[in-house]
Amino acid sequence: MRTAPAGTPLGDDFHLYDTTLRDGAQREGISYSVPDKLAVARLLDELGVGFIEGGWPGALPKDTEFFARAAKGELELRHAVLVAFGSTRKAGTTAAKDPQVRALLDAEAPVVTLVAKSDRRHIERALRVDVPEACAMVSDTVSFLVGEGRRVFLDAEHFFDGYAHDPDTALRVLDAAANAGADVVVLCDTNGGQLPLGLAETVRDVKARTGFRLGIHCQDDTSCAVANSVAAVQAGATHVQCTANGYGERAGNADLFAVTGNLVAKLGMDVLPTGGAAELTRVSHALAEIANIAPDTHQAYVGASAFAHKAGLHASAIKVDPLLYNHIDPPSVGNDMRVLVTEMAGRASLELKGRELGVDLAGLPDALTSAVAKVKRLEAEGWSFEAADASLELLLRKEAGEDFASPPFTLESYRVVLDHRSDGEIVSEATVKVHVSGERVIATAEGNGPVHALDAALRKALLPYLSWLDSVELADYKVRILPGHPGTDATTRVLLESSDGDHEWTTVGVHPNIVEASWLAMCDALVHKSRRG
Amino acid sequence: MRTAPAGTPLGDDFHLYDTTLRDGAQREGISYSVPDKLAVARLLDELGVGFIEGGWPGALPKDTEFFARAAKGELELRHAVLVAFGSTRKAGTTAAKDPQVRALLDAEAPVVTLVAKSDRRHIERALRVDVPEACAMVSDTVSFLVGEGRRVFLDAEHFFDGYAHDPDTALRVLDAAANAGADVVVLCDTNGGQLPLGLAETVRDVKARTGFRLGIHCQDDTSCAVANSVAAVQAGATHVQCTANGYGERAGNADLFAVTGNLVAKLGMDVLPTGGAAELTRVSHALAEIANIAPDTHQAYVGASAFAHKAGLHASAIKVDPLLYNHIDPPSVGNDMRVLVTEMAGRASLELKGRELGVDLAGLPDALTSAVAKVKRLEAEGWSFEAADASLELLLRKEAGEDFASPPFTLESYRVVLDHRSDGEIVSEATVKVHVSGERVIATAEGNGPVHALDAALRKALLPYLSWLDSVELADYKVRILPGHPGTDATTRVLLESSDGDHEWTTVGVHPNIVEASWLAMCDALVHKSRRG
Repeated sequence: MRTAPAGTPLGDDFHLYDTTLRDGAQREGISYSVPDKLAVARLLDELGVGFIEGGWPGALPKDTEFFARAAKGELELRHAVLVAFGSTRKAGTTAAKDPQVRALLDAEAPVVTLVAKSDRRHIERALRVDVPEACAMVSDTVSFLVGEGRRVFLDAEHFFDGYAHDPDTALRVLDAAANAGADVVVLCDTNGGQLPLGLAETVRDVKARTGFRLGIHCQDDTSCAVANSVAAVQAGATHVQCTANGYGERAGNADLFAVTGNLVAKLGMDVLPTGGAAELTRVSHALAEIANIAPDTHQAYVGASAFAHKAGLHASAIKVDPLLYNHIDPPSVGNDMRVLVTEMAGRASLELKGRELGVDLAGLPDALTSAVAKVKRLEAEGWSFEAADASLELLLRKEAGEDFASPPFTLESYRVVLDHRSDGEIVSEATVKVHVSGERVIATAEGNGPVHALDAALRKALLPYLSWLDSVELADYKVRILPGHPGTDATTRVLLESSDGDHEWTTVGVHPNIVEASWLAMCDALVHKSRRG
Repeated sequence: MRTAPAGTPLGDDFHLYDTTLRDGAQREGISYSVPDKLAVARLLDELGVGFIEGGWPGALPKDTEFFARAAKGELELRHAVLVAFGSTRKAGTTAAKDPQVRALLDAEAPVVTLVAKSDRRHIERALRVDVPEACAMVSDTVSFLVGEGRRVFLDAEHFFDGYAHDPDTALRVLDAAANAGADVVVLCDTNGGQLPLGLAETVRDVKARTGFRLGIHCQDDTSCAVANSVAAVQAGATHVQCTANGYGERAGNADLFAVTGNLVAKLGMDVLPTGGAAELTRVSHALAEIANIAPDTHQAYVGASAFAHKAGLHASAIKVDPLLYNHIDPPSVGNDMRVLVTEMAGRASLELKGRELGVDLAGLPDALTSAVAKVKRLEAEGWSFEAADASLELLLRKEAGEDFASPPFTLESYRVVLDHRSDGEIVSEATVKVHVSGERVIATAEGNGPVHALDAALRKALLPYLSWLDSVELADYKVRILPGHPGTDATTRVLLESSDGDHEWTTVGVHPNIVEASWLAMCDALVHKSRRG
């Protein structure tokens, strides 16, 4: 069974193993549909991971369906091998008779990862069996599945705590698995309490005492999951289990993207197919979308801020030599260096940022001065241009004196009415009065909410005059309530992401009234599009 | 100058050093006012850190004002010593004549931390001086400040990269500082590219070669800042620089709370005053509030999810023995274990959660069954009870058959009108028609936005009948736009945090219309309060 998994171009020497669809799905707030799970698996395969743990067939209906649809050909994997996760047989029965074990076979995945307790306290107090029976449960189940033609990995749950408490029991569980034909025994820091130096020592120790092929699975409860995973690889583990963006229970798991970034960029390991590393950022953000979790802007390697420089100090020196201030070259992981516009940044940052946006302020010292002043004033009012390049670009172009004589339209007034009627029906209706191409246009539309109704009314009014409006759609809409500064009311910041199919742009609006804040961001979005055409 | 800093009860053997107010303030999105900075310093002092780096006086006006107000007695520290951060003198002048160095003296902080480049490439290409002059800039500035009665620490910027590239230059910079009287030389992983095993080796090596007192300052660009900081301490560093919640430029700095949790819980180090560790969670969340950044729910030790168990598997076993599934006892860091209610969790979780909320479902199997079904259905529609215990408690009490015959009021209808008038004025007005204490009441009020207006109208209608309403206020309001599932529109989830001064509770509302979603959360909030009285 040690043949290289079909379709793993990197061969079998090192396993990059993803468990986003099983352990990652235990993160608070995540709930994958079956189509979500298929989309996640396709993205992980595009990235080039070696193994994709798809879930626990038999235990969770969605996971059973996922494997059934994958087996029906709905999931074609170029690089990765699909893995079914499950448990060893129950006590006092045989693997062949155990329905949960049968479900693992029915899933038709070429690899099965079995979880087994390796901490005597868990065996005796949670599992309520003795150590010999626990080992028999492992060896029976492994040999049954191997006999059925499956490749088997063993997740030794609570291994590090168990090894510290009673090393003999922990090693007996590993022996039972390896002797029954498991290819990899995975040392799991299930409660996530380990630190790198001690964990690396244990991995070296177990490797020396057993000679087994070792894997590592870390939780982030000490904020060391990535460090622990990398340290384990340096100590001899050749199989590392991660989840996308570190999704997982409690503090989460080891982040696939940070672990991979470290293995590739710091240890020079070739763990992804050619071009894979440059996909890290895109795949990370796409997987966040599917999980419906805002991407962590400060995530290592792939975060929007990972190579964003704010301090005026740095921003000016960066003009000298960017690589002096980045630990790697951002494009190598598909990310970019950004210069942030904030009150802490001076002229240098704004000038650099302008260049990035195609607005050359180098020769316009007065425009640059007033732009810096305006940005500082607006940010003090709660505006934030860090994530709203399109709004910032408009601001800079105005300051640079570019001609905005003809914005596509001007507003006269709007009114939004929300009714919760006595019959329980809820209606949102908006009326806009705008001037476009010399005409005064009045339009009314309904929507499922105030912003949606206002957007619909504006489109209805403008579409006859601005045909390109048809291609623009609202891609994402984020709302942030900003607490008022002393003596002021709270205010609302809206970030609007628009798309015309080819490209996406983000605009910002700030106002105490959420509808007006949304309106301001909508207007910037349309002006941006009308300029680009 | 090696006298123990006044007011540091732990003495001087180990330095827990916080730079939230300087390095942390460089995080994208953070902008501290001077009152913010004073509040942050007070919280850090309550926690018991040894040193608080307040900023860069002279370079940033806010920081200059912060030190001035601290010197005027606006900041009384029980444990911590205030530190002013700054740079060594410019090339070709004397420290005494350098205005930036003078500003460090004027700040009147007992300790000054100087930053100096220790990577020859930075010295020659960014600083544009030769190594002897760079060392002279260090020794002149250190001895001048020591001569003025300051305790001086040196941040050796880019040390690890510099030591790998040219160890002699890096060590010469350390020598210049230590020989001139700097107490601690802090090895900085400025670009954040280090991994723990290699970093620990370098720290041991430098310690052996110099014998100097070493500090560590890590950035999180490999997602190893916490691990690197702890590994450096294990390798001999006795001074560790962190920021609250890891705030900092790019991927951030080492998280003060995770580093402290690890030093205390894993290495058994007594780095906080008695009772300090139990304050970690409270202080972390309070500092997130001041930074106006949502707390990271999955943060190690202090995150709301750090001890939250979701998987049905665990939830049932947890009833047996919680400590088998937590790496530490949550209250020891001021956190709690939580059981999450989600579609993945079964009856066991919901029963446990009910007990946590004071609703005993153990004896009501049918009620438990229908509660599980209802929670699953609502979560499928976009509701989330993970952060809305008050709404969940109401749901469980209803399922348990508790008497809700008399909710405080019933709604007949409401209307909200938003006008953006042609004169530019923006008005939000709401009218509610409700039945309370047998009366039909109609009330109209204005607000600075639709939800504010609706809240105001409802209070106006109910206050004459429900005097307790006076004490209830809207503490926080979060909006999340949920993308529609195939064939459905996007929907809006509102989380409402209410407070009556004594206690805070969170309710949830979900609806395509943001105003109706807010209304639903508002109603739950009031029913919750009317029950508790």
